[in-house]
Amino acid sequence: MLSRYLPILRWVPSYDREAFSSDVIAAIIVTIMLIPQSLAYALLAGLPPEVGLYASIAPLVLYTIFGTSMTLAVGPVAVASLMTASAVGELTAQGTPEYLGAAIALAFLSGLMLIVMGVARLGFLANFLSHPVISGFITASALIIAFGQLKHILGIDVHGHNLIEQVESLVAGLSGANIPTMVIGGAAIAFLVWSRRFLTPLLRKLGVAPKLASSLSKAAPVLAVIATTLAVWGLGLQAQGIAIVGDVPKGLPTPALPTVDVELWKSLLLPALMIGVIGYVETISVAQTLAAKRRERIDPDQELIALGAANVGSSFSGGFPVTGGFSRSVVNFDAGARTPGAGALTAIGIALATLFLTPLLFNLPKATLAATIIVAVLSLVDLDAIRRTWVYSRSDFAAMLGTIIGTLLFGVEIGIAIGVISSLALFLGRTSRPHVAIVGRVPGSEHYRNINRHKVETTPGVLSIRVDESLYFPNARFLEDTINDAVAQDNTIRHVVLMCPAVNSIDASALESLEQINLRLRDAGILLHLSEVKGPVMDRLKRTDFLEHLSGQIFLSQYEADQTLKAQLAAA
Amino acid sequence: MLSRYLPILRWVPSYDREAFSSDVIAAIIVTIMLIPQSLAYALLAGLPPEVGLYASIAPLVLYTIFGTSMTLAVGPVAVASLMTASAVGELTAQGTPEYLGAAIALAFLSGLMLIVMGVARLGFLANFLSHPVISGFITASALIIAFGQLKHILGIDVHGHNLIEQVESLVAGLSGANIPTMVIGGAAIAFLVWSRRFLTPLLRKLGVAPKLASSLSKAAPVLAVIATTLAVWGLGLQAQGIAIVGDVPKGLPTPALPTVDVELWKSLLLPALMIGVIGYVETISVAQTLAAKRRERIDPDQELIALGAANVGSSFSGGFPVTGGFSRSVVNFDAGARTPGAGALTAIGIALATLFLTPLLFNLPKATLAATIIVAVLSLVDLDAIRRTWVYSRSDFAAMLGTIIGTLLFGVEIGIAIGVISSLALFLGRTSRPHVAIVGRVPGSEHYRNINRHKVETTPGVLSIRVDESLYFPNARFLEDTINDAVAQDNTIRHVVLMCPAVNSIDASALESLEQINLRLRDAGILLHLSEVKGPVMDRLKRTDFLEHLSGQIFLSQYEADQTLKAQLAAA
Repeated sequence: MLSRYLPILRWVPSYDREAFSSDVIAAIIVTIMLIPQSLAYALLAGLPPEVGLYASIAPLVLYTIFGTSMTLAVGPVAVASLMTASAVGELTAQGTPEYLGAAIALAFLSGLMLIVMGVARLGFLANFLSHPVISGFITASALIIAFGQLKHILGIDVHGHNLIEQVESLVAGLSGANIPTMVIGGAAIAFLVWSRRFLTPLLRKLGVAPKLASSLSKAAPVLAVIATTLAVWGLGLQAQGIAIVGDVPKGLPTPALPTVDVELWKSLLLPALMIGVIGYVETISVAQTLAAKRRERIDPDQELIALGAANVGSSFSGGFPVTGGFSRSVVNFDAGARTPGAGALTAIGIALATLFLTPLLFNLPKATLAATIIVAVLSLVDLDAIRRTWVYSRSDFAAMLGTIIGTLLFGVEIGIAIGVISSLALFLGRTSRPHVAIVGRVPGSEHYRNINRHKVETTPGVLSIRVDESLYFPNARFLEDTINDAVAQDNTIRHVVLMCPAVNSIDASALESLEQINLRLRDAGILLHLSEVKGPVMDRLKRTDFLEHLSGQIFLSQYEADQTLKAQLAAA
Repeated sequence: MLSRYLPILRWVPSYDREAFSSDVIAAIIVTIMLIPQSLAYALLAGLPPEVGLYASIAPLVLYTIFGTSMTLAVGPVAVASLMTASAVGELTAQGTPEYLGAAIALAFLSGLMLIVMGVARLGFLANFLSHPVISGFITASALIIAFGQLKHILGIDVHGHNLIEQVESLVAGLSGANIPTMVIGGAAIAFLVWSRRFLTPLLRKLGVAPKLASSLSKAAPVLAVIATTLAVWGLGLQAQGIAIVGDVPKGLPTPALPTVDVELWKSLLLPALMIGVIGYVETISVAQTLAAKRRERIDPDQELIALGAANVGSSFSGGFPVTGGFSRSVVNFDAGARTPGAGALTAIGIALATLFLTPLLFNLPKATLAATIIVAVLSLVDLDAIRRTWVYSRSDFAAMLGTIIGTLLFGVEIGIAIGVISSLALFLGRTSRPHVAIVGRVPGSEHYRNINRHKVETTPGVLSIRVDESLYFPNARFLEDTINDAVAQDNTIRHVVLMCPAVNSIDASALESLEQINLRLRDAGILLHLSEVKGPVMDRLKRTDFLEHLSGQIFLSQYEADQTLKAQLAAA
């Protein structure tokens, strides 16, 4: 029972030296990869660099305690950082203590909501973010993020409340671009793009084992950080106008409760929910993908609690919202992490870096961090997913396009809202007009098919209708209309048979509609029959008096219905 | 083409003396019935009595032109009147010119929205008001209306912003009740209740034809009006403190455009939409029931335009929101109306009454009108529907109860909102966790059934899963979880077969999930197969590269899948 909420109790008893040494190796590799990422995403969120490190310590420890994935690595990620910047930036100016306080409060609220959802087992709510909406949102966010980092690569200031104003401001500022910054930033981008493609093959040619080579090449940003920091220091480029990270406070964060500010919390509620849910969706899909490779299980509702605890922990240690990251988790997995213990060990690595390495970051150019972000997020832009969605389903494509345009023009929250509402509306619109076929018998068989698609035989006086959808309130009246119309068009009809093999459920509204249809047909001298009703649907109908009122019969098969009614009509 | 939007063109060419005389008789009966109803519902809406008459002229004429039902009668009805009082009462005080102006604007906006929905063919949106929500809302509204009229029966004033305050105020005021008012009101209620039950049998015993007897007894309120008006006039009861209707302006309304007031319109948008949609749902269900009895067709989208035109017409002639009424339409039908022309003739009847009869209404006691309302609306309280819903479906019952409680405690708009949102949420929650069964073969057959319900044979190494729902984003991840879990629990599985006879569609999210499932299973050395995929679903899958990536095969039947895989495993 206790281990249901504390999954750490499941694996710690069997934790041994072998697992520990695997975890240590993975932790070292992930730590090296995380340091520049943490700094970069703090920059993206508009926060001081050390906040990125803080957000990579406590959350990892808490996920170790509460998480069910053996290999997931949590921490600052690009999309959550953008959403943080967007939500907090609306309330207060970057660089102020209020800005940091709001980011901390955002992590707290987001974590709290996730924990509540997890305890209430509401994980299924995340399903309402459909794949096209998520994919469109991430693509649009990546474009916004990449564009937003251009100013750091160019060494200029960019202002504006929306994309159009920002583009204008960027173009206007181009003449004032700082050449040394552009050289450093451009070189970093070029190196990172090159390393994504060619570093792994190079390392393998040098004799490094394939998996290790792949993991090590993910640490390319560290090389960029070291090289550009040394260049700035050695060539004295700060004097040339290159923006550097500067003083990063040494030492671990002091644990503190977030300040209680009801007005602030109120205005952060919606962003907190969105960051939490979107982070959760990413987390769960990464965790599931990795777990399946080793036939491990994850518990989606417990993952809500774990991600919630990680965010509350981030907040209590002065950090901002965190999420399960894709690339760091893959690196952790490939480097051989065996248990969530690898996460706690990574936290120790980051803590050591925070204690001892921060003075070395003084000369780190912001352009390098911006380059890291740009290269990381542009790989999230998935044009092929857009094309595939267009080919597969126009309505899914509409929801995706709505999300992309909404996000680009009106920001992340409205973009997501447009996506969710439009995909729900399209889905409900679709089920409200289900596929309905008038069917006839395939000659010489007991099969019944759509009269418009197949050459089939119908029995005069009998109208057989098949509905390819469960019957519930969005389509209940559609069914009434359809049957009314069909009957009004043909005066010879004496029997209507509703063929129900695809009806998985009938709700109270549809039952009411069936009763209305039954009564109306009876008034017009027509009997209503049902055929091929599923077992669970029939069980439920038996609880009501519908079957007593039904003017016709229930037939096990459509063939039986057709034969019986044909015989009756012939006898009459 | 023109007759699509002007259905009058369909029946006028064949309109003959016979149809006309049928329509005239129906119109006379309906007019007699409508006069007290119009006055009473104006009272309920907090408006001067003549406004009820105005709202029964132009709307009837416009419905004759635009409507597709042969027998529907539109005009002021109880629920729309209550909603009008509630919406307008929040903005301004009863009895002021602003109050009347807002009611007129409400009819205009409501009509405009209905017309727009009709032209855009959005009638299906009304389906999202499920039967339990409508039924719960009408029951709660009827209770509110009946309670609200008690003050007129008692002759006291009642104040309060919610039901509890109003009950307190009523109880506190009881000692000040006016005895003559109570006698008149009580007698009217007793007579009306008696006439509902016994007037038709009595008239039939007196030799009146059955249908006419039933229609005439619906005119009982007119008798009550005449009798109590004479009593007040003859006994000089006004001096005893009985509240009377008083001066009703004579003559037809002056056509006028509603005043344009953007602020006012903004605050009326939501109530206008709700009145329009709820009125439409009532209208369409009455119209469909009556049309089916004669095998006539109605056009649901054109009905939106017709009801919208009726409301705009009501507004231009100084009236308030109107709807297709149930009892008046049934009377119209039973009295033999043949075409919508009966409506136009009824409008002439009401216009004549407005021109010549209003002075006779001076001494009409408000208590009589209140009695008419109470007896009419209490028949709308449908306790049996509540019981039946409870028995049939707990989730439908939850939506219904939420609507009732919400309406009683927080008012009509919040009540409806709670109902719609909760029924959508419950529906989406349900489809997000569809019924999934692991299936095996019924021995000696080719049928596959749930292993938990039937004694069936399974093939070792093959996991066959049947999903009883279309696959779309609310349940896509559920499918991933289910398959991951099932596979993680059994290390011997080599093949997973997804049996799809109940899958009516697969959206882009579910396709993505299937691709993930396919990849994850492949990583774990398991092949994924599909069986019994429906034709339209297969057509769509063929547009993608899913089938190329699929590690396993597509089988036409589950039996074929099982046999093939069993043979493969035996050969290996």
